[in-house]
Amino acid sequence: VQQFKLTTEFLEELREAISKRDEATVAGLLHELYPPDIADIFNRLKAEEVKFVYSQLEEQTASDVLVELEDDKREQLLSLLSSKEIAEFVDNMDSDDAADLIADLPDKMQNEVLSQMEDTDQASDIVDLLNYDENTAGGLMATELVKVNVDSDAVECIREIRRQADAVETIYTIYVVDDNEKLVGLLSLKKLVTSSNRSKVADIYDAKIISVNTNTDAEEVANIMDKYNLVVVPVVDALGRLVGRITIDDIVDVRRDEETEDLQKMAGIEAFDEPYLSMSTFKILKKRAGWLVILFMGETLTASAMSFFETQIAKVVVLALFVPLIISSGGNTGSQASTLIIRGLALGEISIRNWWDIVRRELRVGFLLGLMLGIIGFLRVVVWAQFFPAIYGPNFFDIGLVVGISLVGVVLWGNTIGSLFPILLKRLGFDPAVSSAPFVATLVDVTGLIIYFTAASLLLSNVVM
Amino acid sequence: VQQFKLTTEFLEELREAISKRDEATVAGLLHELYPPDIADIFNRLKAEEVKFVYSQLEEQTASDVLVELEDDKREQLLSLLSSKEIAEFVDNMDSDDAADLIADLPDKMQNEVLSQMEDTDQASDIVDLLNYDENTAGGLMATELVKVNVDSDAVECIREIRRQADAVETIYTIYVVDDNEKLVGLLSLKKLVTSSNRSKVADIYDAKIISVNTNTDAEEVANIMDKYNLVVVPVVDALGRLVGRITIDDIVDVRRDEETEDLQKMAGIEAFDEPYLSMSTFKILKKRAGWLVILFMGETLTASAMSFFETQIAKVVVLALFVPLIISSGGNTGSQASTLIIRGLALGEISIRNWWDIVRRELRVGFLLGLMLGIIGFLRVVVWAQFFPAIYGPNFFDIGLVVGISLVGVVLWGNTIGSLFPILLKRLGFDPAVSSAPFVATLVDVTGLIIYFTAASLLLSNVVM
Repeated sequence: VQQFKLTTEFLEELREAISKRDEATVAGLLHELYPPDIADIFNRLKAEEVKFVYSQLEEQTASDVLVELEDDKREQLLSLLSSKEIAEFVDNMDSDDAADLIADLPDKMQNEVLSQMEDTDQASDIVDLLNYDENTAGGLMATELVKVNVDSDAVECIREIRRQADAVETIYTIYVVDDNEKLVGLLSLKKLVTSSNRSKVADIYDAKIISVNTNTDAEEVANIMDKYNLVVVPVVDALGRLVGRITIDDIVDVRRDEETEDLQKMAGIEAFDEPYLSMSTFKILKKRAGWLVILFMGETLTASAMSFFETQIAKVVVLALFVPLIISSGGNTGSQASTLIIRGLALGEISIRNWWDIVRRELRVGFLLGLMLGIIGFLRVVVWAQFFPAIYGPNFFDIGLVVGISLVGVVLWGNTIGSLFPILLKRLGFDPAVSSAPFVATLVDVTGLIIYFTAASLLLSNVVM
Repeated sequence: VQQFKLTTEFLEELREAISKRDEATVAGLLHELYPPDIADIFNRLKAEEVKFVYSQLEEQTASDVLVELEDDKREQLLSLLSSKEIAEFVDNMDSDDAADLIADLPDKMQNEVLSQMEDTDQASDIVDLLNYDENTAGGLMATELVKVNVDSDAVECIREIRRQADAVETIYTIYVVDDNEKLVGLLSLKKLVTSSNRSKVADIYDAKIISVNTNTDAEEVANIMDKYNLVVVPVVDALGRLVGRITIDDIVDVRRDEETEDLQKMAGIEAFDEPYLSMSTFKILKKRAGWLVILFMGETLTASAMSFFETQIAKVVVLALFVPLIISSGGNTGSQASTLIIRGLALGEISIRNWWDIVRRELRVGFLLGLMLGIIGFLRVVVWAQFFPAIYGPNFFDIGLVVGISLVGVVLWGNTIGSLFPILLKRLGFDPAVSSAPFVATLVDVTGLIIYFTAASLLLSNVVM
């Protein structure tokens, strides 16, 4: 079976069957599909259509689909279901997904659903899970796992797995615990299958095991799983007792949130903790206004810098025309450089120990990029001056030189600041991503103006002084 | 065992043992460590120190460490080893890691290593793997997997697993093939363990299986594994025959490359295909110059726009002072908005169908942010005018109004363009990340100037006309 592609024809067929309440056709259309595909379809249907289809699904499939739905679609669907119906679905979910779903319900509904669950073990696990901070290992973990006592043997292990198999969908590994439920190691299914039935667990298990604590930060868990190439990691409490496990798919979400945060920081936004569309206007304003005002304050220095050169501008007004071009070239180059360095640092490709290599290389790159733009800028002035002599005046060649030379300087400078600023931030213990691009741009704007008008004062001294 | 933290004390102790050629102490220090930890240590040691430690490691550990090393460190170490020694390590690696390592060797060395490998099956697998494009499923896959014939029974399965177990480190799942080696389904280890020994594979295997082709694009593989929460996915050839499998840890790297590419595109850089420090200056220039020149060309329009207002500038020079402040405010706001929208689109939180919701909300947010900066800008002019009357002149209040009102307009406009531009790109079938931040900034710079000077012409008409 290859992957399913959702087509308009398929949707139309399904919708028609739904409008006719044709249960057989609906079931037939969805039969071969996986829960994520059904969730995709639901995201395109109306609420009442979803409700009809939903009632046709097998219980386990229905629970899996619920986990995969987009947040607002799920909320919509849940609001159409009774607490009894929700309780049935929650019974079929992995405890981590179940806890996440229940946490999103209104308080009153939470208690109703929990009290109506048939699987009381699952209900009590969920209540426990709800106590953990969602950004810790405890908040990420599920309680479904297979564990055996270190004193048992292979036959008992297999019996134990058969007993626990109903609740546990995939067995990644078998955890080995002592009489106090303390985690002492792991036994791979491969090892179990390839050992004789008479083997003692104590003789075949692996005592070398990496675990995390319930209060380990989610990012730290992600780093550990990444570093040691783990598909699943066990979670222990303060006494070392095995209480849950975290699988790699939950870590994908942690990483994604982290990347989003970095991107937002780089654009001068405080990290959003909710999806864009579910945030209120006021909250968005709060996240964006802070840096915007700080950058604005910084940028008012450009007006101060330019006021020093007011006489020159008054005498050669055409100088003012190239201010945006010159400062934006510095800003663009700087933001290229800072992006490269920030990403290199995040991936560990660059370390702050390499700073001198980076400076040497970026000085070279910056000079060459500046030279390129400088030549184009010079030509732009000289060519335009032939068509608009009134604006450029008789000194057009010198003005072209001022623009060209300033571009070399500003681009070189922007590139250097752009590459060094993130390294400096990191060296000082800050996150190099914090608002770096606009911050570098602001810094380069102010200094770029000084470079430009200083060049003008020197090269056009006969005119402007 | 908890995770290992590399301390300076530990490093000093190790270095001393190395300088004394004290094999027992070195072995003792490293005994409890995992390969990624040993790799971390190697990244901090000198080449000759690494070589000594390396010779003390067990063969399997040594191979695992080699895979985890930073690229330049690995190259350094490999250059110290003979082709015979490399061949031994490659024998112990998973075929995908082995192929990656061999691909990085010089051509002559590749053949020497391959011909000296003891495991000739592994050598021939590697030669096959080297033929695939590295950005396809074929280039990512490893050939180590456990497969059974659909006509066998549970006992034969277990015998087969025992036979294959040496080469396969972790068994994720058992693949079921027919007599032509065609993939027909999978059998979970859990199912095998919980079934009776007399069960037929044909009765207990699951025919619902998601697979990819050898030529499926790596990003597509990542999307499929993500969507269906797969830890491992089988790879089939054009005839549907099982040829390999891809595990989730390889996908993490694919995702990381993708994110890097997006970030670089957003900053107006063509995607880097190598780590920053290993690229030549010329290559970096090529990746950066293209967009920089395009943006520069766009930005020259600011000079054209301003030239229309040359008379006004000549009469009220102070107007020029606020040009950088006003256009950068539009640019910063626009880049905040475009970052939010691009990320929302990438995560699927926003769809282009929502464009009208987004416009309405961003108009509101943009207006309020603009109002905030506008008030600060107005105050900045009016207050400074008290201290520098010579620069601001008698019309300072009107100039303050021009700056304030323009800021409202430019910020509102920048925010609107910043949020709509990525949606438009996506609607037209382009990648919304492509150079959006600087592109939006350039667009907003040109239009922002027109807003500013038009406001000036209207409000200061008695002075400038």
